[in-house]
Amino acid sequence: MATLVLLRHGESDWNAKGLFTGWVDVSLSAKGEEEARRGGKLLVEAGLRPDIVHTSLLSRAIQTAQLALGEADLAWLPVKRSWRLNERHYGALQGKNKAQTRAEFGDEQFMLWRRSYDVPPPPIADDDEFSQAGDRRYALLPPELMPRTECLKDVVERMLPYWYDEIVPDLAAGRTVLVAAHGNSLRALVKHLDGVGDEAIAGLNIPTGIPLRYELDAEFRPLVKGGEYLDPEAAKAAIEAVANQGR
Amino acid sequence: MATLVLLRHGESDWNAKGLFTGWVDVSLSAKGEEEARRGGKLLVEAGLRPDIVHTSLLSRAIQTAQLALGEADLAWLPVKRSWRLNERHYGALQGKNKAQTRAEFGDEQFMLWRRSYDVPPPPIADDDEFSQAGDRRYALLPPELMPRTECLKDVVERMLPYWYDEIVPDLAAGRTVLVAAHGNSLRALVKHLDGVGDEAIAGLNIPTGIPLRYELDAEFRPLVKGGEYLDPEAAKAAIEAVANQGR
Repeated sequence: MATLVLLRHGESDWNAKGLFTGWVDVSLSAKGEEEARRGGKLLVEAGLRPDIVHTSLLSRAIQTAQLALGEADLAWLPVKRSWRLNERHYGALQGKNKAQTRAEFGDEQFMLWRRSYDVPPPPIADDDEFSQAGDRRYALLPPELMPRTECLKDVVERMLPYWYDEIVPDLAAGRTVLVAAHGNSLRALVKHLDGVGDEAIAGLNIPTGIPLRYELDAEFRPLVKGGEYLDPEAAKAAIEAVANQGR
Repeated sequence: MATLVLLRHGESDWNAKGLFTGWVDVSLSAKGEEEARRGGKLLVEAGLRPDIVHTSLLSRAIQTAQLALGEADLAWLPVKRSWRLNERHYGALQGKNKAQTRAEFGDEQFMLWRRSYDVPPPPIADDDEFSQAGDRRYALLPPELMPRTECLKDVVERMLPYWYDEIVPDLAAGRTVLVAAHGNSLRALVKHLDGVGDEAIAGLNIPTGIPLRYELDAEFRPLVKGGEYLDPEAAKAAIEAVANQGR
């Protein structure tokens, strides 16, 4: 049996401003930092001690891992990072205001981009100020791997190789693994773990800053579908709040 | 040619209090955090962009790396950590006040413990409150590797395998390598790089928070002995201040 803990980063500066973020590398807000520390406290209270942490290449997930692990006196854990755990690339919507985008393109198009499984937003131009075309952290990615936009299906496809090649071996070695990442890369992983259908995944939201614990069987499938949030009440409230937001 | 950058962590809470620290895991002071950020700014100003960072398992070095790299927009770099980059284990002196220790044991014994190459302080007892005997981060170290005290010679011997096995391969792969560590683990590395003698090393001090850059030849030996501090004036002043402290 192996233990996997998923942690979605807390509020970023752009969440607070209502902008599409995607691969743009914004920092946590003060509230987001507090959420991360609270995530660490929840780990301690649950007696959960990760042996290794995996993060995306985006600062808000890296900071979340650092703050949470610092709170748990685990700043020294080995770390692996990968672009494959990054947030969904939001294409040409990156840097745009969500409310304005909704007003400009209408509810239907807006929700299609946000929640459909396989419709990506228009690709971002390389010379867009919010493009990652010149970002050094992706310098070793060949052009055919470097996304210019993504739907959730794309995220599942590029995330899974990392799950199989980097995370599963750590779990197989008996390590408790913490993955600090993003709303959509974690939804992609949960979709895989729980076998959520392409349509049903639209309705699944992962709250920020509340560690989600999965006990996995010998085939790295959850013993309990959906896992267990370390603060189930707070998670339920946060999930309901997101669901109501969409209405 | 390969580029190696050494960064000694800034002031910790215990430096400020005048206590022997060694393997005790204390945090940076506010001043130490500022030193780390300044180290990051110096990297940017020098146009030095590490590709990977190596740290000890101690929070003050980890925090220094995070703050410096955050300042340089490089928080996403791959990280490797090892106990082999830890500060010298100060044995039974850990947690003791330096001035009191000097008064209790006399100048000669005090300087022997601090500066001799091969005389370690008395070993720390496993039940000492400042022992690392139960520290989970060293749980995989077999007893014969787990230090209870160290002289600088011991540090050289346990550090060098990490240099050869983990750092040199990164340099050989063409990566610019940042090592964020401690006064004595970095002195051990500099001793090796510059071929400093067992006695001469006593007089070598590495200032905190100022990146020290080495350009290395094909055999990973410095092109210029002693390397180059990114802020030579500040480094000189800091080194002179330490030398005067000892008088």
